[in-house]
Amino acid sequence: MTLFRSYADDMLLMDWLQDKIWPMENHLTGNDVYWGSLLGIAEMIRTGTTAFADMYFFMEATARAVASSGIRAALSRGLTGSSAADGKARLDENSALFDTWNGVENDRIHVMYGPHAPYTCAPEYICSIVKEAARKGAEIHMHLAETKGEVADCLKKYDKSPIALMEELGLFELGTLAAHCVHVDDKDMEILRKHHVRIASNPQSNLKLASGIAPIGQMLQKGIVLGLGTDGASSNNNLDMLEEVRLASMLSKVKEDNPRSVPAKTAIKCGTLEGAKAIGFDEVGAVTTGYKADLVLYDLKEPEWFPRNDRYSLLCNAASSHSVSHVFVDGKLLYENGEYLTLDYEKVCAEAQRCAERLSRA
Amino acid sequence: MTLFRSYADDMLLMDWLQDKIWPMENHLTGNDVYWGSLLGIAEMIRTGTTAFADMYFFMEATARAVASSGIRAALSRGLTGSSAADGKARLDENSALFDTWNGVENDRIHVMYGPHAPYTCAPEYICSIVKEAARKGAEIHMHLAETKGEVADCLKKYDKSPIALMEELGLFELGTLAAHCVHVDDKDMEILRKHHVRIASNPQSNLKLASGIAPIGQMLQKGIVLGLGTDGASSNNNLDMLEEVRLASMLSKVKEDNPRSVPAKTAIKCGTLEGAKAIGFDEVGAVTTGYKADLVLYDLKEPEWFPRNDRYSLLCNAASSHSVSHVFVDGKLLYENGEYLTLDYEKVCAEAQRCAERLSRA
Repeated sequence: MTLFRSYADDMLLMDWLQDKIWPMENHLTGNDVYWGSLLGIAEMIRTGTTAFADMYFFMEATARAVASSGIRAALSRGLTGSSAADGKARLDENSALFDTWNGVENDRIHVMYGPHAPYTCAPEYICSIVKEAARKGAEIHMHLAETKGEVADCLKKYDKSPIALMEELGLFELGTLAAHCVHVDDKDMEILRKHHVRIASNPQSNLKLASGIAPIGQMLQKGIVLGLGTDGASSNNNLDMLEEVRLASMLSKVKEDNPRSVPAKTAIKCGTLEGAKAIGFDEVGAVTTGYKADLVLYDLKEPEWFPRNDRYSLLCNAASSHSVSHVFVDGKLLYENGEYLTLDYEKVCAEAQRCAERLSRA
Repeated sequence: MTLFRSYADDMLLMDWLQDKIWPMENHLTGNDVYWGSLLGIAEMIRTGTTAFADMYFFMEATARAVASSGIRAALSRGLTGSSAADGKARLDENSALFDTWNGVENDRIHVMYGPHAPYTCAPEYICSIVKEAARKGAEIHMHLAETKGEVADCLKKYDKSPIALMEELGLFELGTLAAHCVHVDDKDMEILRKHHVRIASNPQSNLKLASGIAPIGQMLQKGIVLGLGTDGASSNNNLDMLEEVRLASMLSKVKEDNPRSVPAKTAIKCGTLEGAKAIGFDEVGAVTTGYKADLVLYDLKEPEWFPRNDRYSLLCNAASSHSVSHVFVDGKLLYENGEYLTLDYEKVCAEAQRCAERLSRA
């Protein structure tokens, strides 16, 4: 959704989707998704993100962009369906994506199955997805408990919270990445913990769409694996991981009325080691023996890095992601002091701009 | 307080003050404040802030830093006193600061009077400050309604909210910059509106110290002048105005459960024109006939500036302040593509680091 950055903001979620995003998505082509993905990847590399999870469509195009750019990713086809039959073609696409791309590039690309959300997938469809994913040995990526409205509707329709409903449908028997989890109660958190569900928390998007503030501190205290995401450039509006690290710490303090909640080092761990675990990459996210060389170097010359009392605090609370000087993924240098070594940056910007202009006229 | 950046974080306000900040402040010298001010000024210039308000001590040193660096500022001596007599020496210092520095450098420096807060200034002392400021024709800068505890204590002690108490003491008869105003009710807001009190809202600091989320959208709707601040590098932990603009918009959405609250253009206005008004500078903060040439240019080459659907949205929601390429204050170029034209940046960093190391050993 990087092409939709700054296309529609400050709107109610349903107006935004129905009047702006969905009509534009109807005109999307694989070419748009390819250049939009490369622009997003360039931004992630430049701001120090070495791995991401993405659920969308035309994911073949995204996979090609991931492969050539050298970044690490867990990809899934966004799946929606009012019944198993209604959603079958999309499920087949997800399976084809898995067969072609899972584990390629020295295991730099993973493919997950992407049931979109409880309100866009009928239970019968979810069961068919779970069955297929289990057969392939694949994991799941799903949006869960993002808004109060979603939880209320789910309770009304199924007499269960979204989390409890997914437990019942067997979704959590597979490794699951649950995006958002803003509105979860103690029972939900116990289900998440018990089944080792991993969270992708998206603090800035949850603010921008007025979804709420996730109980990050509480989930971490229960031992739930929690990584950080941006939700994409259309609802954020950038892909800056350091902003999410900072917000994870700062928002938890005001949410819990406790400035000791989610200290700097914990928030940084959510943005590195826990984030890698959350999206299903082991041996990524720490500088230690046996781990992959996914590394970000910061140039400490800008004023916000002075004085150097505590470097965890400087990184979490003060630094700009534009201080990133070098980015390595799987031992390969992708970015060095303004130069992108695996992509033609000027061409990416020009093509993405061209695609966005065509779409906004469509 | 820039020297205290990353010195003590993730602490309860009173532990932070009593165990960390106050003991260190006891060892502060004018030399420390001079180099700390220059480091903060360098950071503000680099990230696109052209004017600030500051209340602290050794303000003569800060005034020299403001004068030589070319930035614009409204300075005040932080005043605390359990009685008029107890606080008299500090009040005299504020008056001396006013006599020497107010209006100098082509009106680039203003001096205000700085009663610190309702909980550090006895009413009698506040009255003596109001009297002296009125005699000089000076304005007031004060912290008001920052925390729930402050409001509760004030109600208990004076049977009035901090805002109502200051109205009664005649503070608002002078032009007033009220910092924070997180915990204000409808009656408080009506007092603020009626007396044209201007707000300095500090969204990130209010998160970090778990103070709360200010009702920015409501205050703006009532026509209250509201600018944005950082509160300083020790409780933020940077001086990045663009972060505050973004948070002002994003936090208002979740606070009011309404994604239409404080849209991009409104938030940018709070960080520019309204901010200049708030700290008492007219004819600053807009590019129009008769206004001073305080200008920030952004280089749009980084990925988060693409595609260019809406530039207000890009600036408010996506951009990094490190995209700033040129900064002018009062028509003079202060920063150009990494070069500071009015200060010796390497020396500033080295001296600030040296001061911080000495203080942390003290």
